[in-house]
Amino acid sequence: MSLFLYNTLSRKKEEFVPGVPGYAGIYSCGPTVYGDPHLGHARGPIIYDVLRRWLAHSGYRVRFVSNITDVGHLVDEVKGEGEDRIQKRAKLERLEPMEIAEKYTWAYFDDMKDLNVLRPDIAPRATGHILEQIELIQELIAKGHAYVSGGSVYFRVKSWPQYGKLSARNLEDQEAGARVEVREDKEDPRDFALWKTADPEHIMRWRSPWGEGFPGWHIECSAMSLKYLGESFDIHSGGIDLQFPHHEAEIAQAEAAGHKFARYWMHHNHVLLNGEKMAKSTGNFVVLRDLLKQNEPMVVRFYLLQSHYRSVLDFTGEGLEAAHNGYQRLLYAYRETRRLLASASEGRHSGLDTALDQLEAEFSQAVNDDLNTPQAIAAFFVFLPELNRAFAEKAGRASLERTARVFAELGEGVLGIFPPRVLEARLEGHLLDGLVKLLLDLREDARKERDFARSDQIRNRLGELGVTVEDTKDGPSWKVEV
Amino acid sequence: MSLFLYNTLSRKKEEFVPGVPGYAGIYSCGPTVYGDPHLGHARGPIIYDVLRRWLAHSGYRVRFVSNITDVGHLVDEVKGEGEDRIQKRAKLERLEPMEIAEKYTWAYFDDMKDLNVLRPDIAPRATGHILEQIELIQELIAKGHAYVSGGSVYFRVKSWPQYGKLSARNLEDQEAGARVEVREDKEDPRDFALWKTADPEHIMRWRSPWGEGFPGWHIECSAMSLKYLGESFDIHSGGIDLQFPHHEAEIAQAEAAGHKFARYWMHHNHVLLNGEKMAKSTGNFVVLRDLLKQNEPMVVRFYLLQSHYRSVLDFTGEGLEAAHNGYQRLLYAYRETRRLLASASEGRHSGLDTALDQLEAEFSQAVNDDLNTPQAIAAFFVFLPELNRAFAEKAGRASLERTARVFAELGEGVLGIFPPRVLEARLEGHLLDGLVKLLLDLREDARKERDFARSDQIRNRLGELGVTVEDTKDGPSWKVEV
Repeated sequence: MSLFLYNTLSRKKEEFVPGVPGYAGIYSCGPTVYGDPHLGHARGPIIYDVLRRWLAHSGYRVRFVSNITDVGHLVDEVKGEGEDRIQKRAKLERLEPMEIAEKYTWAYFDDMKDLNVLRPDIAPRATGHILEQIELIQELIAKGHAYVSGGSVYFRVKSWPQYGKLSARNLEDQEAGARVEVREDKEDPRDFALWKTADPEHIMRWRSPWGEGFPGWHIECSAMSLKYLGESFDIHSGGIDLQFPHHEAEIAQAEAAGHKFARYWMHHNHVLLNGEKMAKSTGNFVVLRDLLKQNEPMVVRFYLLQSHYRSVLDFTGEGLEAAHNGYQRLLYAYRETRRLLASASEGRHSGLDTALDQLEAEFSQAVNDDLNTPQAIAAFFVFLPELNRAFAEKAGRASLERTARVFAELGEGVLGIFPPRVLEARLEGHLLDGLVKLLLDLREDARKERDFARSDQIRNRLGELGVTVEDTKDGPSWKVEV
Repeated sequence: MSLFLYNTLSRKKEEFVPGVPGYAGIYSCGPTVYGDPHLGHARGPIIYDVLRRWLAHSGYRVRFVSNITDVGHLVDEVKGEGEDRIQKRAKLERLEPMEIAEKYTWAYFDDMKDLNVLRPDIAPRATGHILEQIELIQELIAKGHAYVSGGSVYFRVKSWPQYGKLSARNLEDQEAGARVEVREDKEDPRDFALWKTADPEHIMRWRSPWGEGFPGWHIECSAMSLKYLGESFDIHSGGIDLQFPHHEAEIAQAEAAGHKFARYWMHHNHVLLNGEKMAKSTGNFVVLRDLLKQNEPMVVRFYLLQSHYRSVLDFTGEGLEAAHNGYQRLLYAYRETRRLLASASEGRHSGLDTALDQLEAEFSQAVNDDLNTPQAIAAFFVFLPELNRAFAEKAGRASLERTARVFAELGEGVLGIFPPRVLEARLEGHLLDGLVKLLLDLREDARKERDFARSDQIRNRLGELGVTVEDTKDGPSWKVEV
């Protein structure tokens, strides 16, 4: 059974054939680190995380590279506050873009960790590869595909007829798009910047053969993906918005310089909020951190995986609640399997074994079909009634062990929705509840036996532990005080 | 009251006077990311973390920069495995130094997070600043302080008579040290590499005006500290081993190129194990991660802070256990303060207020005296008897609130030893222990009353919750099964 992926280049599902047998190289466009990630920023990392986990599960040695775009466009805020301060130019008093980049890089990785997204094998920074970008630009100039103008360097689009092959844009579309920012120093409105000359107030700047400046937005991904994954690497992924111009430009830069570039291009679709695209620029977004504070992060991950990555996902409170309930059902089933294992008798349960065969087959088929995660999750829900039947019939240890292994390998290993943190935390909450319930039952027994010394003893010692008990008409309720 | 720091440059304690009032810039030499950190690697980050927290507590806006040395010296392992594989040179099959650097960068930051070390404001990578390093080398060549030889570039030590001013080494010492690795292409054995030409099998390599190669070890810190902290920045810190040649070379590189460099130099001393220096090279070390798994990380942090940073610290099991006990006493006091606050009556407790005045004064005096953390911790222990007396005398809310604030601001805010995780987790562990203990006591009562139905009920329901009880001759013991 092979993995098929929808390749934006060919606009059809294609069998994934690695460039080097046994190895898979993936480049995924990462975040721009000048603000808090919003929910829309989580979709790509999660689906490509599942891709990576699935390839590893299928036996590949995966190298997953995801960049950090930290070349910012901040200007020196000190300027204009008086001659004296400018002349001093004490670095410490100035806004330091790298401090902001550092902060939001951590914000991104913290969110990703909470979402159980594996860390990239390499997370190259754009600012850390200025030299590589300059070298690639030099190659393009040498081959006539780029030109210097006014201290900036532009890619000469008309020299590269394949420009548009990924996004299937014709010349007219490109011109319409480009006309928005006509620059005097371009030969052609479609040309895009490889290197930009820095205005005096621009803080992030590097020396280059063309004067002080900073790289254009597209060049970093061409340079860094080739550096860490090599020629003709396997998979390049990113948001659907990046198809044009970003990915189109990446391909043109790499191929015009004489390199073979990525063979499979994957794009995930938008997350909508209130029916409109989630985007910083419009203010229509949910800050990811807020969502992760208010919800178990695994529910958010589960929610995102319940839609196919190429479909638009309309984020709603009801959808999140439904995901919460569905996730709890799966988590309960996994926990219950682990709990029953402790006291299970030897033997198998044939109904459960058959259901596991079916689950494994359906799960693989779904994921191999262009990462159809909603279908893969559905296979778990189809499995649940049979598992519950097996619980009731006291299924033997061997079948329960296999069940736990399937939850671990497919649920956590591939979908990444049952990290130890969740399993253990839930057990701990469960344990706390159980212990207090047992004590309250013993207290109730004591009261029925009119042994008030003992019932008071239990209540008082609970109070010392910070557990306050209140008797209501529905029986005792309790809470833990810190 | 001012902060005094021992400045290695002057070999005496000096008042800290910032270059820009209200701001403090610190550069601290960070890890080389080609292996798991050992305990010795934790001492510097923890003490400079306290420095940083103290400066922030004292009202400074701090910028803390700590580098990641990821320029490695790995060679291509594929070479020598047959012509065919070399010719293919598929990047994916090759060892990728950046993959290793990424892994161990995370290992370092994960350990630091567990140790409650604040993240740097900027954590610049050496590989991310090749261009800046090349530029600094070019300045040195232009000024006659460096020369090209065989594709490498060396610093011309004899052109810079101040070389040796930090480590107070005379010419003879320097020559003795340098003689170990005499290179044919140097003018003088004391000269050190700024840029090294790369042998064919060297993987990490960049193009430079002198051919393909990689930067020498020292140049990154000069380039990156100046970039992010500016001329004549405040504090440069690192291990005592780095005084020579690393820091000496940093100063020479920066100053010979015409820059003003750091004004205060701080060095922390060795951690010994079995009386010998902890070092990877000799095998005499404790992997930090192992230690943090086996011990509450805050106990490790507390242990390291119980010695002055300029003293040698001899790590022993007994010392760790003593630190554990001491830490538990402080933690208990803090927890008890919080617990009692919930039910405290209005009012103050004059004995406690006086003791708090004394604690605050002694703590500040100790930290201001060249970060005397053992003395600062001792101030807390001096405070404990008065706090316990205040507990017994049911101290009023206002004084208890102030006590909690002092624990939060000085204990957590400055020493960094009471993160929320510990306060909360301990309460939870404490709670679990307390609940089980109460149940076992009730079971014991039931047995004494020969009510075996109830004692069995308690044991069985605990078993259902995963708490197994075993009766030993010392009474019941229990554990939680997952």
